[in-house]
Amino acid sequence: MYPQILAHIKTYVHLDAHEEQLLCDTLELIKLKKKQFLLEPGKLCKGNYFVLKGCLRLYIVNNKLHEQILQFGLENWWIADQDSLLNKKPSACYIQTIEECEMLLLTEHNKLLLFEKIPKLESYFLIMMHKALVASQRRIGFIFNMNDEERYRYFAKLFPEFLQRVPQYMLASYLGFTPQFMSRLRAKKI
Amino acid sequence: MYPQILAHIKTYVHLDAHEEQLLCDTLELIKLKKKQFLLEPGKLCKGNYFVLKGCLRLYIVNNKLHEQILQFGLENWWIADQDSLLNKKPSACYIQTIEECEMLLLTEHNKLLLFEKIPKLESYFLIMMHKALVASQRRIGFIFNMNDEERYRYFAKLFPEFLQRVPQYMLASYLGFTPQFMSRLRAKKI
Repeated sequence: MYPQILAHIKTYVHLDAHEEQLLCDTLELIKLKKKQFLLEPGKLCKGNYFVLKGCLRLYIVNNKLHEQILQFGLENWWIADQDSLLNKKPSACYIQTIEECEMLLLTEHNKLLLFEKIPKLESYFLIMMHKALVASQRRIGFIFNMNDEERYRYFAKLFPEFLQRVPQYMLASYLGFTPQFMSRLRAKKI
Repeated sequence: MYPQILAHIKTYVHLDAHEEQLLCDTLELIKLKKKQFLLEPGKLCKGNYFVLKGCLRLYIVNNKLHEQILQFGLENWWIADQDSLLNKKPSACYIQTIEECEMLLLTEHNKLLLFEKIPKLESYFLIMMHKALVASQRRIGFIFNMNDEERYRYFAKLFPEFLQRVPQYMLASYLGFTPQFMSRLRAKKI
């Protein structure tokens, strides 16, 4: 049994003991060391990963061969290449651990099987998807409407612990500005 | 009955005749003239709108008092302020018609009632949400990795008809560049 994911699901929907057991029997525990890859370009994303411990990043290598971080994954977050899952096509992304990590994998195949047996899980995933969509749309708003400094301040206020946990150059990549700008910002102790 | 939305749903899940009837009885037909508002800041978004006819835009007014378009809605697309729906909070957005429009409103209240009676509708909305998330995440990738001209080319290739249908200044707003840049691009007949 994996009490951590069960507690997370319980925030949104109620599963009975039998359903909890069935879910946990279906999940696959994955342990990775620091800087290992969960997904690389050209491969199909296997499913959704629930982070039990550690921190990951999802990134692409852009036209200028820079790493562009599109998403982080922390404890109790789901991470996956949703484009690869939805369209059943090879990924264009890397998912890599930033720290030593433990994740629970729910493969696409098993997810569909579980939805038939536990319809409430479909409700849970609809809420997760809804939350991810809102986060993504808010991010587009921030990109267009805040300058670099405003974006940094906003992010720092929202996730103060995260700022201490992730290397500066990764945060710069996620926020869409250069490491040099980041260093200047930090020097000002904003 | 609304055959257009039923045909759209049929692409993803199968509803029987009784379920189709129940759904259509629940939807609310809304007709608006050009430039009318479906949603304004400070109001709760009532639910999801399926566009039968016409074209709408969802936008915010940013710090510099510029209109920033975050989303368009065309025939067979759903449009809503998902942040307002998810968090049950007043919207920060406008949704306005660009042309004369007909929409079907599925209120949040009715959506939850329908999910209990027609679980397959929850599967359909999970797919819709998944598609919207992928579109939103792709857009973030484009913003970071393409310059203005590349973004315009990409969009023009993907939605050639749309380019003829929407005023230039709105497209510029959506793509995140100035109307002046847009005019120069068009003059080059790219």
